[in-house]
Amino acid sequence: KMTKKIIKLTVRDVRFPTSLEQHGSDAMHTDPDYSVAYVVIETDQGMQGYGLTFTVGRGTEIVVCAVEALSALVVGKSLEEIVSDFRGFYRLLTSDGQMRWIGPEKGVIQLATAAVLNAVWDLWARSEGKDPRKLISCIDFRYITDALTEEEALDILVKAQTGKQQRVDQMLKEGYPAYTTSCAWLGYSDQLLKQLCTDALNDGWTKFKVKVGADLKDDIRRCSLIRQMIGPHNTLMIDANQRWDVGEAITWVTRLAEYKPLWIEEPTSPDDILGHAAISKCHNRVMFKQFLQASALQFVQIDSCRLGSVNENLAVLLMAHKFKVPVCPHAGGVGLCELVQHLILFDYISVSASLDNRMCEFVDHLHQHFRSPVVIQNAHYMPPKDPGYSCEMLESSVQTHQYPQGQVWKKLQ
Amino acid sequence: KMTKKIIKLTVRDVRFPTSLEQHGSDAMHTDPDYSVAYVVIETDQGMQGYGLTFTVGRGTEIVVCAVEALSALVVGKSLEEIVSDFRGFYRLLTSDGQMRWIGPEKGVIQLATAAVLNAVWDLWARSEGKDPRKLISCIDFRYITDALTEEEALDILVKAQTGKQQRVDQMLKEGYPAYTTSCAWLGYSDQLLKQLCTDALNDGWTKFKVKVGADLKDDIRRCSLIRQMIGPHNTLMIDANQRWDVGEAITWVTRLAEYKPLWIEEPTSPDDILGHAAISKCHNRVMFKQFLQASALQFVQIDSCRLGSVNENLAVLLMAHKFKVPVCPHAGGVGLCELVQHLILFDYISVSASLDNRMCEFVDHLHQHFRSPVVIQNAHYMPPKDPGYSCEMLESSVQTHQYPQGQVWKKLQ
Repeated sequence: KMTKKIIKLTVRDVRFPTSLEQHGSDAMHTDPDYSVAYVVIETDQGMQGYGLTFTVGRGTEIVVCAVEALSALVVGKSLEEIVSDFRGFYRLLTSDGQMRWIGPEKGVIQLATAAVLNAVWDLWARSEGKDPRKLISCIDFRYITDALTEEEALDILVKAQTGKQQRVDQMLKEGYPAYTTSCAWLGYSDQLLKQLCTDALNDGWTKFKVKVGADLKDDIRRCSLIRQMIGPHNTLMIDANQRWDVGEAITWVTRLAEYKPLWIEEPTSPDDILGHAAISKCHNRVMFKQFLQASALQFVQIDSCRLGSVNENLAVLLMAHKFKVPVCPHAGGVGLCELVQHLILFDYISVSASLDNRMCEFVDHLHQHFRSPVVIQNAHYMPPKDPGYSCEMLESSVQTHQYPQGQVWKKLQ
Repeated sequence: KMTKKIIKLTVRDVRFPTSLEQHGSDAMHTDPDYSVAYVVIETDQGMQGYGLTFTVGRGTEIVVCAVEALSALVVGKSLEEIVSDFRGFYRLLTSDGQMRWIGPEKGVIQLATAAVLNAVWDLWARSEGKDPRKLISCIDFRYITDALTEEEALDILVKAQTGKQQRVDQMLKEGYPAYTTSCAWLGYSDQLLKQLCTDALNDGWTKFKVKVGADLKDDIRRCSLIRQMIGPHNTLMIDANQRWDVGEAITWVTRLAEYKPLWIEEPTSPDDILGHAAISKCHNRVMFKQFLQASALQFVQIDSCRLGSVNENLAVLLMAHKFKVPVCPHAGGVGLCELVQHLILFDYISVSASLDNRMCEFVDHLHQHFRSPVVIQNAHYMPPKDPGYSCEMLESSVQTHQYPQGQVWKKLQ
């Protein structure tokens, strides 16, 4: 039997100069260079696992530094050893007696944890099946037992076994519904917005997200324009990327209400549970727990790279199911679509068994750098067919975009 | 007129091997090596400003990396330029369009922000006076205006001018009341605990904090022992350092209630506002705001190095005053006492004008490494007399403890 001992972990700072064309621009991130801390782990049998976490340029070197600090906890362990007590291994990374001080479970160190664990999940995904009990053993229930116990979680997964094969078949045939954020980045001109909108409608898209929050007059013009383009029956969402104070959010959104947005994304600080009456991307399961307990969100936006990998996302999917709130994942960036499609397919097939009010974000940038890019058909994510967690990048892309020594960055200096 | 242009920023990883003797040990941090990311900024006129943030060993290199990333935003600016729009400068550091992604305002990047801004405050403290209006202009009110507006904040400071000189005189004479955490670290033997307690009582201490949370039987023994040592009329506090789930905290604390603790510190995740019914050390003003709004804490524990320096601590002191909750700062670590004494003296003299239910933590380790260590008399902090923010370290201490090349660490390898 193979031991699959992890003997090496490498991490690289890979950046794409997306700010040059304002891809990804919003009210708070005006010049993002979409980037990743890209992790490759290698076993003594020559198997590799790929993982990443998403960042937007400067500061990626800090996350790389954090991954290097965590690597001592990973190298030397076997995959069997890790997955036989995955909850313990998760806690080893997130609760190291010295490093947890600089978190805990938030910011740089949590992003680094996600990158490392994503690589472990990628490696694991290539081998065996995972039954409900095995999955539950991956979740650290610390701090959430007042909202969801281990027994309740297992019960959810066992119940959802009913009708599973039917849902698998449905997904393979139709895919998972998606919405697009590619048409309306804040820095795009009206002309570009119109062009992209027309193209998207022709490609079958029916749900669109617009970035707002920098200037109210601009927002009115852009929302009005896009509502006109997509007509009254398609779906519009708006995203302020944490730009507003609580009072400001209320005034602003009241003014934009006539364009009938389905949701308001990140109106204010992501830490402000009590100030929210919308949806949010949280940094850990404890924040999601409270947003759910306080009925402070109507849609749960999980993130494959801000939460602690699959382990922590499982906890959030199960809590969302218990609190009856639909999950509509955050995606885009670099590789977030590739990763999160696995989570949302799992949610439909093995947890919620529902598509009501559910859709997964899609952003059409940078997929060409991945070995197994997402497949979109008729505005749906088609299930990935290659083994693993779909975040292996093309080595040529990594080398060209490595910061600061890659060719792309040398040219720009 | 001097321009005081900042031309250089250096940051060093300085660690003390405190885990060897279990100083600082608690239920979550079983082997802390008390450490700092130590920052020195230098102006073209040869003036220096000193700042730091506290960490507990591994991971300090990540904070150092983050300080280096922020340094580009500081070097080249003059002190006048910074303090003439300190709110804007604060936001430049905390809301950089690319780096905020890896926070925002939490974890590694917030600790680094504190280290850098602490150095700026140290430099600024050495020169001019700061009136209420000037202080208000240092605060970023983003995300907290629903709890405290700029006008309300100014009003608080203006009102507190009454009786100010009297309080200054009182502080110079009596100092600010303190409590000690040095007697009862989790890893200390009962014998050492008894010895330290006896010494502390002889030195005039009347308020003691005990670390709990690892093992209930141990906690009962230790709490019983310390309550016996200090008698029924002195004050006892307990600190679980985030060890428990919500339900677990309730059971555990119920069992320890007979020892009459004044407070339970960090019973659960620091992110869990709704799960708290105690006090907490938060990572930013948005978290403190909600703890106050939800009446989820009865004491506010500010931290000079986890919040964004004086700027963000001002916001929290003012909110605490508005919500009528006493401030009892977190201190200890490396340099936290030296820094936080300034904040709590400011709170008494210029904000709350009250000592009711108020005291400042004291831990008796590592003060000898500072140029102007805190002065404790009869369990009170005596106001610092040297100019600046009191965090200049002895250069010899820095060099001996630099990680990994300092002499202390070379010997341990």
